[in-house]
Amino acid sequence: MTAPDPSLSYALPAPLPLDGGQALEGATIAYQTYGKLAADKGNAILVCHALTGDQYLASAHPVTGKPGWWERTVGPGKPIDTDRYHVICANVIGSCMGSTGPASEAPDGKPWGMRFPVITVRDMVRGLAALLDGLGIERLHAVVGGSMGGMQALSLAANFPERAARVLAIATTARHSAQNIAFHEVGRQAIMADPNWREGDYYGHDSTPDAGLAVARMAAHITYLSEAGLTEKFGRRLQDRSAKSFGFDADFQVESYLRYQGSGFTRRFDANSYLYITRAMDYLDIAEEHGGKLADAFTGHAMGRGARFCLVSFDTDWLYPTAESRHVVHALNAAGAPVSFVELSSPFGHDSFLLDVPALDRVVKGFLDG
Amino acid sequence: MTAPDPSLSYALPAPLPLDGGQALEGATIAYQTYGKLAADKGNAILVCHALTGDQYLASAHPVTGKPGWWERTVGPGKPIDTDRYHVICANVIGSCMGSTGPASEAPDGKPWGMRFPVITVRDMVRGLAALLDGLGIERLHAVVGGSMGGMQALSLAANFPERAARVLAIATTARHSAQNIAFHEVGRQAIMADPNWREGDYYGHDSTPDAGLAVARMAAHITYLSEAGLTEKFGRRLQDRSAKSFGFDADFQVESYLRYQGSGFTRRFDANSYLYITRAMDYLDIAEEHGGKLADAFTGHAMGRGARFCLVSFDTDWLYPTAESRHVVHALNAAGAPVSFVELSSPFGHDSFLLDVPALDRVVKGFLDG
Repeated sequence: MTAPDPSLSYALPAPLPLDGGQALEGATIAYQTYGKLAADKGNAILVCHALTGDQYLASAHPVTGKPGWWERTVGPGKPIDTDRYHVICANVIGSCMGSTGPASEAPDGKPWGMRFPVITVRDMVRGLAALLDGLGIERLHAVVGGSMGGMQALSLAANFPERAARVLAIATTARHSAQNIAFHEVGRQAIMADPNWREGDYYGHDSTPDAGLAVARMAAHITYLSEAGLTEKFGRRLQDRSAKSFGFDADFQVESYLRYQGSGFTRRFDANSYLYITRAMDYLDIAEEHGGKLADAFTGHAMGRGARFCLVSFDTDWLYPTAESRHVVHALNAAGAPVSFVELSSPFGHDSFLLDVPALDRVVKGFLDG
Repeated sequence: MTAPDPSLSYALPAPLPLDGGQALEGATIAYQTYGKLAADKGNAILVCHALTGDQYLASAHPVTGKPGWWERTVGPGKPIDTDRYHVICANVIGSCMGSTGPASEAPDGKPWGMRFPVITVRDMVRGLAALLDGLGIERLHAVVGGSMGGMQALSLAANFPERAARVLAIATTARHSAQNIAFHEVGRQAIMADPNWREGDYYGHDSTPDAGLAVARMAAHITYLSEAGLTEKFGRRLQDRSAKSFGFDADFQVESYLRYQGSGFTRRFDANSYLYITRAMDYLDIAEEHGGKLADAFTGHAMGRGARFCLVSFDTDWLYPTAESRHVVHALNAAGAPVSFVELSSPFGHDSFLLDVPALDRVVKGFLDG
């Protein structure tokens, strides 16, 4: 499922404290960097990845061989300009591309499986902060992320307010809604219903819970796209046939596309990581972590003592709709933190942050270079 | 899964021609009636049920013991007044509550399973028309339905324009969108991924594909509710606990609710029926059936020669949003058919047609009695 990982990696020198009360010993963070770090270490940008993302931001994925997931945004002369900035992207704790997660060896030498502790987005961010410590980077030029990456950016700002000069959070939220949780729960149930899941103890077996993981991915994938985008891309067009088959093959292009998305995903992702990371996202409620009021999470940024913020939402994103970004912006305003906010128009739904939206390029560049 | 069925039933005297080119021999339609049929048979209302509905419209479900699915709307003195109308509701072909479907015996004496022919909404309607023939009802006072029931109502109007004097189609569409198909495909893949599905040949086995069917139901159920409705009903409230468990139990009420919906559903519904009926809905494109132009489907209703129409949508229904009803209304206008249309405000999403929406009661009663 996961191939040998050519990433850089950093072994945390101390146990990582977790919100669940445990501490994760011997954890490793796998990461990649792009662009040169300045002598004063002042040009580092941390990009945080989304649920199924990884550290291969601007270089080919070692398993799929596909281009990095944000190559349109990160590179020489691009909106996040690697001629100018040192870009760091790390695989989150709990994932499966080299950072410690459920597929990793536990202290007893066997894979963690479901014995891996349940983590939170804040735990992921604690891991990232430990990595920055290890790299000797005290203050980032910026922390940037879309979707779960944006959650990490906001969590870093809330929990380590000195750590970044700029926070750019795209297509994201400070809390998972009931509908967000519901979709994730469907995915988890699909994985757990797969007999090959074996209560998470499938490592080393010939069969892995690919069928369940594929269904989970398919359900999630629909939420990443807009209804209008799906209609424009697929409509009711048939796949490689001129008439309906009156059977259960993938008659429609959208069915074929979803099946492809589902099965392709199983080749690069670990089902248990999917369980753990979706759980972390569902647990996200930054206000709750700070006494129940979101503004209180951001008091460290009052009067420009901390970071400047930029929030971006997309008008067709129904997973983390604009109202969620606006909620964060109101809290930042209440905390007296400097924030700009824009809702961009794009046909692509939640996935807009990964796709061809020139207005996003301008916002990203303007905010980071300004 | 399905208990002995106390329904009335009608054995079709002739093979039922199907859109797939086959003819279904020896088919039976199970149905229920409420209220007295007038001597002139002029007071009959056919109510068509939704995907997982059945004929137990206004009386207890024989498997679950729960009240009929539309008891708030159908009964003495209710919006569809059984003191006044003779209400007929029949289980659709392909379903599992007494009408012929994949769980029924094929001519070889074994269950059809996946040998059952793929059917369409128009095929269901052909079955309903045959039932009306058998009951001697030439012209209905009205045909009424929500969701897939509305699809049947529109299909009856398009294909049997003389058959109903009024057509009331609620929260529905004349074609399944790419997003609609996508969600159904997730459900089908969840069922087919369940090893207990056994290519549909699970009848008589101890184990049935309940896990897959439950996941399918969970995914679909989310689409029946609005984001705001889910937030109001569940928010991020925890289930029977005061703090997160840092585990994979149903911590959140919305998770517990979805699991309950999923598992309860498997006790009353056949997985293969779910495959066949979702397929029928995905195939729905009434325009395509009539040369590609929806207005041409309704030319039989020009100048009031056929039916009067009423379309109702709900502002929070994102499964079949108002735009889909409007699309039908424009086609009816273009065909010169009399039509009224209202978008109702309701917090409940697609499921609004089943729930406490007093404005809907008034529209239903007004249209049927007028």
